[in-house]
Amino acid sequence: MPKTLEEAAIRDSLGRLEGWSLQAGKLHREYSFRDFSEAFGFLSRVALLAEKHNHHPEIQNSYSTVVLSLVSHDAGGVTDADIAMAEAIQALG
Amino acid sequence: MPKTLEEAAIRDSLGRLEGWSLQAGKLHREYSFRDFSEAFGFLSRVALLAEKHNHHPEIQNSYSTVVLSLVSHDAGGVTDADIAMAEAIQALG
Amino acid sequence: MPKTLEEAAIRDSLGRLEGWSLQAGKLHREYSFRDFSEAFGFLSRVALLAEKHNHHPEIQNSYSTVVLSLVSHDAGGVTDADIAMAEAIQALG
Amino acid sequence: MPKTLEEAAIRDSLGRLEGWSLQAGKLHREYSFRDFSEAFGFLSRVALLAEKHNHHPEIQNSYSTVVLSLVSHDAGGVTDADIAMAEAIQALG
Repeated sequence: MPKTLEEAAIRDSLGRLEGWSLQAGKLHREYSFRDFSEAFGFLSRVALLAEKHNHHPEIQNSYSTVVLSLVSHDAGGVTDADIAMAEAIQALG
Repeated sequence: MPKTLEEAAIRDSLGRLEGWSLQAGKLHREYSFRDFSEAFGFLSRVALLAEKHNHHPEIQNSYSTVVLSLVSHDAGGVTDADIAMAEAIQALG
Repeated sequence: MPKTLEEAAIRDSLGRLEGWSLQAGKLHREYSFRDFSEAFGFLSRVALLAEKHNHHPEIQNSYSTVVLSLVSHDAGGVTDADIAMAEAIQALG
Repeated sequence: MPKTLEEAAIRDSLGRLEGWSLQAGKLHREYSFRDFSEAFGFLSRVALLAEKHNHHPEIQNSYSTVVLSLVSHDAGGVTDADIAMAEAIQALG
């Protein structure tokens, strides 16, 4: 089973992840887009990454806003898989 | 501005909408799919409907589960636009 | 039925549409993206526009390349609906 | 480099792939959906599979029709990766 990261290690990784924070034990980021189309174009690319990584964020969308949360439910906390997924999402640019 | 519906009128419409309920002043439905792919295929079609109707549900997705909420924020309640959107989503089959 | 545009009128519109040309009686544009993810994010947004306009381009996709063609089959040629759709796609930025 | 399959091996695999054929050296299948929404819901799921397998079909879409072609360009023919992708697409049901 993947090992959960200590909070210090998570905070260290967050230093490289623009806009992400630790909230309620999950990696968390909110996005504001111009409209629904731009939000959904982004979500489609997040979906492709999720299947590629076999690691799926929790997604909330309301018109032009998107909220993503990442946690490894099986491990009961944030793991390297969550950090890697956040980095891949960030690399979408 | 669109007129909000009385609760009796909403409950009447809910009789034709399988699985939808009124929760916290919004039309609400939860879906369970086989996996993320099936959930995302459904969400893609909901997105197309949302742009066609120019009326966008609040979306929550966590792997194979999807929760949709419909309310007309500008009118401050549930309107005919929410009912019409729920019916269109139901018609996706 | 929508009226087809004369070739002169089409060429006039093409002056405002970067990268689009008239090929085999259709508006035509080719896109090169960085990878499949970027191509598919774009296609998702084109799909939303197509449903909103109720006017659907012919789409070809091969990894990072996308080719779009627009013609009004019912009218038998290029109409204002094709120009409007090309302009909306261009506005995706 | 992946090895291309002999035509006999391809034809053997095609026996298990409903609706697929060998055309111009590629695995080929045409789909007819009820409308664009159903076609795009399917394409979204094909896109997820393509990223998961890191193997991307050539896609053609015109309103409710979808044509998929599979070939391994690097190997110069049909390989096991194409068969596996066609099987995964078939399993979408």
